[in-house]
Amino acid sequence: MASPGSGFWSFGSEDGSGDPENPGTARAWCQVAQKFTGGIGNKLCALLYGDAEKPAESGGSEPPRATSRKAACACNQKPCSCPKTDVNYAFLHATDLLPACDGERPTLAFLQDVMDILLQYVVKSFDRSTKVIDFHYPNELLQEYNWELADQPQNLEEILMHCQTTLKYAIKTGHPRYFNQLSTGLDMVGLAADWLTSTANTNMFTYEIAPVFVLLEYVTLKKMREIIGWPGGSGDGIFSPGGAISNMYAMLIARFKMFPEVKEKGMAAVPRLIAFTSEHSHFSLKKGAAALGIGTDSVILIKCDERGKMIPSDLERRILEAKQKGFVPFLVSATAGTTVYGAFDPLIAVADICKKYKIWMHVDAAWGGGLLMSRKHKWKLSGVERANSVTWNPHKMMGVPLQCSALLVREEGLMQSCNQMHASYLFQQDKHYDLSYDTGDKALQCGRHVDVFKLWLMWRAKGTTGFEAHIDKCLELAEYLYNIIKNREGYEMVFDGKPQHTNVCFWYVPPSLRVLEDNEERMSRLSKVAPVIKARMMEYGTTMVSYQPLGDKVNFFRMVISNPAATHQDIDFLIEEIERLGQDL
Amino acid sequence: MASPGSGFWSFGSEDGSGDPENPGTARAWCQVAQKFTGGIGNKLCALLYGDAEKPAESGGSEPPRATSRKAACACNQKPCSCPKTDVNYAFLHATDLLPACDGERPTLAFLQDVMDILLQYVVKSFDRSTKVIDFHYPNELLQEYNWELADQPQNLEEILMHCQTTLKYAIKTGHPRYFNQLSTGLDMVGLAADWLTSTANTNMFTYEIAPVFVLLEYVTLKKMREIIGWPGGSGDGIFSPGGAISNMYAMLIARFKMFPEVKEKGMAAVPRLIAFTSEHSHFSLKKGAAALGIGTDSVILIKCDERGKMIPSDLERRILEAKQKGFVPFLVSATAGTTVYGAFDPLIAVADICKKYKIWMHVDAAWGGGLLMSRKHKWKLSGVERANSVTWNPHKMMGVPLQCSALLVREEGLMQSCNQMHASYLFQQDKHYDLSYDTGDKALQCGRHVDVFKLWLMWRAKGTTGFEAHIDKCLELAEYLYNIIKNREGYEMVFDGKPQHTNVCFWYVPPSLRVLEDNEERMSRLSKVAPVIKARMMEYGTTMVSYQPLGDKVNFFRMVISNPAATHQDIDFLIEEIERLGQDL
Repeated sequence: MASPGSGFWSFGSEDGSGDPENPGTARAWCQVAQKFTGGIGNKLCALLYGDAEKPAESGGSEPPRATSRKAACACNQKPCSCPKTDVNYAFLHATDLLPACDGERPTLAFLQDVMDILLQYVVKSFDRSTKVIDFHYPNELLQEYNWELADQPQNLEEILMHCQTTLKYAIKTGHPRYFNQLSTGLDMVGLAADWLTSTANTNMFTYEIAPVFVLLEYVTLKKMREIIGWPGGSGDGIFSPGGAISNMYAMLIARFKMFPEVKEKGMAAVPRLIAFTSEHSHFSLKKGAAALGIGTDSVILIKCDERGKMIPSDLERRILEAKQKGFVPFLVSATAGTTVYGAFDPLIAVADICKKYKIWMHVDAAWGGGLLMSRKHKWKLSGVERANSVTWNPHKMMGVPLQCSALLVREEGLMQSCNQMHASYLFQQDKHYDLSYDTGDKALQCGRHVDVFKLWLMWRAKGTTGFEAHIDKCLELAEYLYNIIKNREGYEMVFDGKPQHTNVCFWYVPPSLRVLEDNEERMSRLSKVAPVIKARMMEYGTTMVSYQPLGDKVNFFRMVISNPAATHQDIDFLIEEIERLGQDL
Repeated sequence: MASPGSGFWSFGSEDGSGDPENPGTARAWCQVAQKFTGGIGNKLCALLYGDAEKPAESGGSEPPRATSRKAACACNQKPCSCPKTDVNYAFLHATDLLPACDGERPTLAFLQDVMDILLQYVVKSFDRSTKVIDFHYPNELLQEYNWELADQPQNLEEILMHCQTTLKYAIKTGHPRYFNQLSTGLDMVGLAADWLTSTANTNMFTYEIAPVFVLLEYVTLKKMREIIGWPGGSGDGIFSPGGAISNMYAMLIARFKMFPEVKEKGMAAVPRLIAFTSEHSHFSLKKGAAALGIGTDSVILIKCDERGKMIPSDLERRILEAKQKGFVPFLVSATAGTTVYGAFDPLIAVADICKKYKIWMHVDAAWGGGLLMSRKHKWKLSGVERANSVTWNPHKMMGVPLQCSALLVREEGLMQSCNQMHASYLFQQDKHYDLSYDTGDKALQCGRHVDVFKLWLMWRAKGTTGFEAHIDKCLELAEYLYNIIKNREGYEMVFDGKPQHTNVCFWYVPPSLRVLEDNEERMSRLSKVAPVIKARMMEYGTTMVSYQPLGDKVNFFRMVISNPAATHQDIDFLIEEIERLGQDL
């Protein structure tokens, strides 16, 4: 096996990112630690060195005992590989940890050491002088380390090394210059909550085994429905494993509402159903239709205007067309915040059409839902309160750790009727508590991960106003980027006008292309620019931003900002970096 | 707001469980801490008190500096509410944490304090003198604490308190006497891995943003396919959010294999499809059929023998019946380890029938798959290598934290063809690395949680032989239970013979019922016994085990053992506890 961790915790050129703001070597963990003195240290020492045996004295202030202390290693690599005084992981295995007899001590030491590794990673994640990614091609990465699984156990020293190595090659998704996905950033309270969720290690199907989490799901979904604008927050909902599944739920429930017999009889028993969504909508609508036996051909893509918004007149035309063919329109999925342009479909106009033709209105606000938290921006979702169902992913614009996606439904009880199978081994009818809290049978899943706690705890920590501030700041940053590049030499905007969401779509045109006429050759060359710049970004590890073609538009950058760590300087850096990496193309 | 945490970290009667092995008050955190001295303490102190600023000296052993230390509180409650010297969370908010300027110090302190809370919970979880659950009825729990979400932020002191309160009311799923679900126990390496996964906070859709995790998924799924017995571990697969979704995938892929046109045209384009599974199979087969537009009426339930195994002759009869009606049998889902009885369907006979009639053979080994790791028990799944797809949940019998469910498919590429939608914003075709590692488009989900790392790290830590030892031990414990109660007064077995899995199904018959004739009144009274004992178990918080009716059998206990902490003494305790709580009924 290769020596994997080498260099990871050391300082030096690997971390040099070319960042003009943070020149030279990295500020690393130990430098942070130097600044770090105080209560927690005392507390830990007291805990670790036996002060806890003293009787409680409120406000007591005796120093921790020194007698039992042993020499610490003094190297500046944490965790270091120096011989440890008392815990030698090379002689410890998983079988020495709890629930082993006398497993507490090694368990606490091991978990604390894992935590050290994680804390170092967290601190590094926010350090602009570190790389966003230490990129290796798949074959390199497969060869660089032995990832294979074997018959025999490894010792805990090796396990700690695997943790380091895994993080060495991971993307720092909390890094201030990571803009690659709609989900970026690393929230500290959300992270703490996710650690707690892992520690509680339970399932959402019944109140019996997840009492608090079931109640928190109830409280949180209700709050989200209130914010959508449904009276008294009434309705239903669930946290599902991602926006695609939330959208699939909406399609499933809409179909059931119109044709409940489909549950028993299948699609053979119902006429041909048609769903409508915009040509800029998320691919999950088609994926869902394929899975649900509706078929992708029955998903009609409605034209968008130049800003990526669904054109209501085209929607109505296609609905009438479908009806004339004897098909049954059953779902319109409007998008609030499209994936690429960040466009908001005109929800009021869509709602009017849905009402007129009695069609289930779904709003895919996976990306745009967060704007409902902002008094300044929520008007972009006006009409969402008329939807029958809404997908809203707090793991995107609200910065909740992955995954946290909600499907909200206006009509209560429908999800339950649609999905319940009454498994008697889980949902016993003769339990001693109120069975309405056994919510598992409304899910497609049986076991369901606890996704609510991180959102709930972040909400308590930030308040609605904290989410609002985050969202307003991200939109302001997007506007800042737009204002810089809209008239800057070498940039062309993909669509005109100020972005409605944080999506800023643009081409960077290298000097050699600026002189070319607007013809096919130029388009062909332009289409190769973004992939090359992106590849270089990853190889240097300085930043990450996404690109794609769309319709007849060749590869362009889609900048999105949901990362709470990003600042104006990071936007400036992005522009400079694109130019640095692309000027020779 | 009520004062929530009070009493949680204190010792006393709340923890008295009536456990004869651990009488009296709890061993609690601080007593653990008293035993705890050594390298980690030194290391933390060095880290926290500035030794790190010294130049690295390999093997250096200077003691940590004492100069900058401040007084620690000396109370024995951890975390305590005594005034802290340096970090006063009452004046700190989420906005003071990273990425805030100078956020490192409060962030490290906060995360470390969260970790303290979690470590205390972990230690308590394994302590038999603590309750499995501090049960409160839903309305009580809603009133006992303010769970509501508000506009304004709360300070970090309150956030830490919420963490404590949440854990106070949580089920200790790692507790040695928690037997309620197929997923029990809390593995320390798995937990560490899940914390790391949360910290990495990424998504599985592309290699670009999850390089290591994508490779580990590749390595791990291949290993699982090797163990199933597919030559060279070839084939395909995915980690999905739970066994129900894995089973739904199997159904989806089987349908696509036979009628690929269903993806575009929907179920209207194909004949009526019929799936077959046993009457003891998991409800997710019907749930999947309802969702996929196949309909629950098209899921034929095959009869089981008295041990809960599918009867092959009935399967063949029903296949022929369906064909005579002009329907198309497309899937047989055999179960390896049924939910209630733990029965293994005769896979070889089922495989013969599937081959004869050219039907996709799926094996739902969500619960039984773990036995493939045991040389002693894997014969129970003989024939699984002939399946076209297999569901296998390492989060059940292998003790991996929730969730970790794999769907393995023998034919490579089929999942991709079935589910791909070619979203150009994610799966750009002009990336600079090998695109075969962008595996996201074979999923139904778009974003997908990283579920592989905890399994991979546990596998490295335990080796295949470690999983084998765990599984052999759990099956031995089940046999121990069976041997005790099969002839014990007051017990009746639900089915005869030694259990094949760890499921032991039995009635406890209280003395007052033992004298009654075997008639309807007795059945009616017997049906009320298990729910009452279960309710009392939860109210006392001493243990948890599941019960249910099945077919014409009234409520019986289903004991299952997947908890690595359980011992023979815990089985003895369970029996005594059932008798203690049920003797008056």
